[in-house]
Amino acid sequence: MQKVAVVMGSSSDWPTMQQVATQLTALAIPFEKHVISAHRMPDKLSEFGKHAADQGFGVIIAGAGGAAHLPGMLAANTLLPVIGVPIKTRTLNGVDSLLSIVQMPGGVPVGTMAIGDAGAMNAALFAASILALTDEALTQRLEAFRAEQTKRAEESEAALK
Amino acid sequence: MQKVAVVMGSSSDWPTMQQVATQLTALAIPFEKHVISAHRMPDKLSEFGKHAADQGFGVIIAGAGGAAHLPGMLAANTLLPVIGVPIKTRTLNGVDSLLSIVQMPGGVPVGTMAIGDAGAMNAALFAASILALTDEALTQRLEAFRAEQTKRAEESEAALK
Amino acid sequence: MQKVAVVMGSSSDWPTMQQVATQLTALAIPFEKHVISAHRMPDKLSEFGKHAADQGFGVIIAGAGGAAHLPGMLAANTLLPVIGVPIKTRTLNGVDSLLSIVQMPGGVPVGTMAIGDAGAMNAALFAASILALTDEALTQRLEAFRAEQTKRAEESEAALK
Amino acid sequence: MQKVAVVMGSSSDWPTMQQVATQLTALAIPFEKHVISAHRMPDKLSEFGKHAADQGFGVIIAGAGGAAHLPGMLAANTLLPVIGVPIKTRTLNGVDSLLSIVQMPGGVPVGTMAIGDAGAMNAALFAASILALTDEALTQRLEAFRAEQTKRAEESEAALK
Amino acid sequence: MQKVAVVMGSSSDWPTMQQVATQLTALAIPFEKHVISAHRMPDKLSEFGKHAADQGFGVIIAGAGGAAHLPGMLAANTLLPVIGVPIKTRTLNGVDSLLSIVQMPGGVPVGTMAIGDAGAMNAALFAASILALTDEALTQRLEAFRAEQTKRAEESEAALK
Amino acid sequence: MQKVAVVMGSSSDWPTMQQVATQLTALAIPFEKHVISAHRMPDKLSEFGKHAADQGFGVIIAGAGGAAHLPGMLAANTLLPVIGVPIKTRTLNGVDSLLSIVQMPGGVPVGTMAIGDAGAMNAALFAASILALTDEALTQRLEAFRAEQTKRAEESEAALK
Amino acid sequence: MQKVAVVMGSSSDWPTMQQVATQLTALAIPFEKHVISAHRMPDKLSEFGKHAADQGFGVIIAGAGGAAHLPGMLAANTLLPVIGVPIKTRTLNGVDSLLSIVQMPGGVPVGTMAIGDAGAMNAALFAASILALTDEALTQRLEAFRAEQTKRAEESEAALK
Amino acid sequence: MQKVAVVMGSSSDWPTMQQVATQLTALAIPFEKHVISAHRMPDKLSEFGKHAADQGFGVIIAGAGGAAHLPGMLAANTLLPVIGVPIKTRTLNGVDSLLSIVQMPGGVPVGTMAIGDAGAMNAALFAASILALTDEALTQRLEAFRAEQTKRAEESEAALK
Repeated sequence: MQKVAVVMGSSSDWPTMQQVATQLTALAIPFEKHVISAHRMPDKLSEFGKHAADQGFGVIIAGAGGAAHLPGMLAANTLLPVIGVPIKTRTLNGVDSLLSIVQMPGGVPVGTMAIGDAGAMNAALFAASILALTDEALTQRLEAFRAEQTKRAEESEAALK
Repeated sequence: MQKVAVVMGSSSDWPTMQQVATQLTALAIPFEKHVISAHRMPDKLSEFGKHAADQGFGVIIAGAGGAAHLPGMLAANTLLPVIGVPIKTRTLNGVDSLLSIVQMPGGVPVGTMAIGDAGAMNAALFAASILALTDEALTQRLEAFRAEQTKRAEESEAALK
Repeated sequence: MQKVAVVMGSSSDWPTMQQVATQLTALAIPFEKHVISAHRMPDKLSEFGKHAADQGFGVIIAGAGGAAHLPGMLAANTLLPVIGVPIKTRTLNGVDSLLSIVQMPGGVPVGTMAIGDAGAMNAALFAASILALTDEALTQRLEAFRAEQTKRAEESEAALK
Repeated sequence: MQKVAVVMGSSSDWPTMQQVATQLTALAIPFEKHVISAHRMPDKLSEFGKHAADQGFGVIIAGAGGAAHLPGMLAANTLLPVIGVPIKTRTLNGVDSLLSIVQMPGGVPVGTMAIGDAGAMNAALFAASILALTDEALTQRLEAFRAEQTKRAEESEAALK
Repeated sequence: MQKVAVVMGSSSDWPTMQQVATQLTALAIPFEKHVISAHRMPDKLSEFGKHAADQGFGVIIAGAGGAAHLPGMLAANTLLPVIGVPIKTRTLNGVDSLLSIVQMPGGVPVGTMAIGDAGAMNAALFAASILALTDEALTQRLEAFRAEQTKRAEESEAALK
Repeated sequence: MQKVAVVMGSSSDWPTMQQVATQLTALAIPFEKHVISAHRMPDKLSEFGKHAADQGFGVIIAGAGGAAHLPGMLAANTLLPVIGVPIKTRTLNGVDSLLSIVQMPGGVPVGTMAIGDAGAMNAALFAASILALTDEALTQRLEAFRAEQTKRAEESEAALK
Repeated sequence: MQKVAVVMGSSSDWPTMQQVATQLTALAIPFEKHVISAHRMPDKLSEFGKHAADQGFGVIIAGAGGAAHLPGMLAANTLLPVIGVPIKTRTLNGVDSLLSIVQMPGGVPVGTMAIGDAGAMNAALFAASILALTDEALTQRLEAFRAEQTKRAEESEAALK
Repeated sequence: MQKVAVVMGSSSDWPTMQQVATQLTALAIPFEKHVISAHRMPDKLSEFGKHAADQGFGVIIAGAGGAAHLPGMLAANTLLPVIGVPIKTRTLNGVDSLLSIVQMPGGVPVGTMAIGDAGAMNAALFAASILALTDEALTQRLEAFRAEQTKRAEESEAALK
């Protein structure tokens, strides 16, 4: 299976991006995690994007906050699908992150997730849905995940009563 | 190659979703287009989602406006990657569409694009980047597309002077 | 009297939706509470909506947060009045929930309440106002409720001084 | 059948509120339309609310724009269900109308619809769903309306191809 | 000197509206405080507005939160200047309060202050500036207040160093 | 009667501020109009504020758009009541103007009106309500204005039918 | 004098960025204009940033719209002051552009101007104020510009009367 | 080297503006800090702006919150580059501050930074980038700062693993 690159703009994004790692691990999807600041390490960003496919990555998940340029700039440097996770910010709650990631101009797409933890978890699931297109075993693990989460939701109703 | 499903909530979304069709055609990616209203045809939505993989689809692109439930409800019914296109609305300019699509809860992801035409074009490109993971010829067509668009951007500078 | 269905997308919505239950109880209106996740239990949602009238429900109150699809999808599956309660969210304070619920397209309405606790309390009162149209005793209980709340407001002025 | 009161804050709201009238007429629901400005005719507003039930009204639909106080003040003066339609405004596109109507404090509910035309149409349908609770013939007309709108949506797909 | 009426929609607005009282007291302006809920006590609101001038009030300061109808409805019932204080809300931080108060239609004005404490303090100062037009002694107290606040601001610079 | 100063940041604000002039004229309130740009004529602004009371002005109405500093800076330079009119802007529809005017810090108030034409008309009416406190004839003209506008609203209902 | 680089993300930004050119020309400041798309020409962007100082540029003005990454990525590649101009967008009116440009993380600043034409004109003036720090003649031209614009504002008042 | 003026509207802005001081100190740039309230000390503001260049200042950094008029009014009184720092506010999180600072009309620019701490730090760096244009030693300190921050970002990746 191709690896997933989990990239974040700053180590302070880790509490959120950790959900990506947890979910990928649960689905037995190999991944690497990297801190690449678009603004502090622009050359590494460019290089990472350009070589991501060669390095065996199939999907890139990039989380960033504020004027969040990391996902879009990675997408500018690779043909791999790039999934963006808007990190919640202290002043604008991640609205700035969301708009900076999702409002990409025609020509260079970023598949954007919800702001914060739910978005991080979903980035992993979205990457899984991509990789599962050619991986029957992963499809089955995803099915099991969905069945399990449905079961938990159903049980929560029982608990409520 | 797996087909792409281009689904929209209403035929009034077609002027935007047309950009998806144009771009998929330009990349020689097979697709089908469907009008499935989440609120007026909920059973067809459910059925379509459940059988999409069996029908040979590899990716679903869903556009909807306002309280845009189509992309998320399709994602709830399939394991295929679902790409959401927020349609611009007359009152709120598509902010309602964007939030209704992107803010999915943890567990069921939708890869969200920009509001309107740019997002529609990018949905096709994002679908292409997914399908290209296992299709070398498509990868080359994507590379050619990127090279061409870079060339056009460079030429526009010359034209400016 | 017809029952009220109190439905929520997740058991984590209970602290808010509890206000619905409290208010319905105070007005002696029979109700059932259910957890039905639009995204994790789409089939149950569809089934619940389709059979709600037959099961003796007269009104459905649905609370959900984020990309809140539950109220609108229930409305798509029933002719009963559906009242939506936007749950406050951690990132966007419930603006996402509000827009996802209120901005329904023409053809399938959801009567939307305020974000959070006040909206939950009011959902119960709105359901009561509907059921009271053909229930004189309930009308009297509503009148008593209003008189009592006016009295408390008047007393709070005295307390202020 | 109880009548529906269609109330608007200004005759300039008529182009939007006309959708209410059209839809009520199509469903053969009796209604009266009134211009009652919350700020210019506060006494008439109060009186209208207080006597609405006695006058044979079962539901009030109130449309207003900007600092839209009409729906909430009617609700303060009656126990009947009040449905609010936020009129689109020139400066803020109806966000002001929406928040002024939907964010009612606990104790006095207004069932709020989408901003503008879709909301006006849905206000009529929501009123119909309330009145249909005790009117089998109206229920059948609503079912026919839903079936017809589903059929039109399905046909629009055919037309697209 | 004419009295100032300090009116609030709920006793829970007192922590904010207290700043009005404090500032009026500091300027030796006579005032009365009242709790009048627009939605729970609509008749008292109407009556209070209609008789405010006769009761010796010269200015009304009204604070309310959420769908804040109190200031506008008081203005609809009196010719006295009405000053609105948008109370900060838990979900929308007072944006709902602000728009519900400031976006009054042409014909019935409310002089709106900032959201929260600063707005409450300024409501008192604005009332003072109105009453000072025909009260030389109050003008002098306002001048002294301004001089004092300028002095404190200047001293804070010294303290910083 | 004291004069009203109608000040605007730019002659391009005149189409909006014209409503102030029209309404003041209709109420026979003397006024002067001035263009004083906060950013281009800061000294004139300061001077105008400092001498406004001496020049016989009783109220200042100031309209400005974008980073609208004119009303607040006039208020900083005078004890007269300053009424702010947020001019609608091309990019942000006047939300920038509104927040720049209304969110004044504690100590220096500006009585803020609605964005655009309605706000301009209301600024004149609010100034009138201030001057009418000590002018019985003006109070009567205001009463006549209110009665007339109520009559027109009532007639519009008749016209609707 | 050092040159100013006027960079835009797309030739469609020219109608706005033209104001930069016009103003720089009026102040006799030498400049070059370039189209450099952050997403379509990331390598050229990087190269341009890295060599801008060597090429004789003293200030960079960068305009971009939507997920506007150009100004921030240029700033990441140079120590020169970078001035950002948020281009007005069709869907979000430039709010996306503004937040994508202004909300830079600590460490890499962009001096952000207003959305649209006013911001473009001001970018030129801000660049001028920087270059004027060591250019007495330019300071005098700026003074003349300010005097002229004050005179025009004063004359507009006369014209109004 | 010319000094930097660090001006804030209130001493309560110091916790944010402290980041300016810290960063200027780290880069060995001389500065003075001042509290100048636009609304409480308008004359001092005017005077400070008019004499800033003569007093040896090369750049002004101004932080303010809410209806933040300080940066724009300083810019109106000087030709020096003025950098604005929007202070985070309790009600609107600094959106009011941001719009009041950045949306300056054409003719008088303010280079605006991000809301809060990041913006304050960047204001210092932006001032440094201006002063470094004619100060080779400062350019080298800025380069060292950038290298150091890149190194820290790289190390944070290692720490993550």
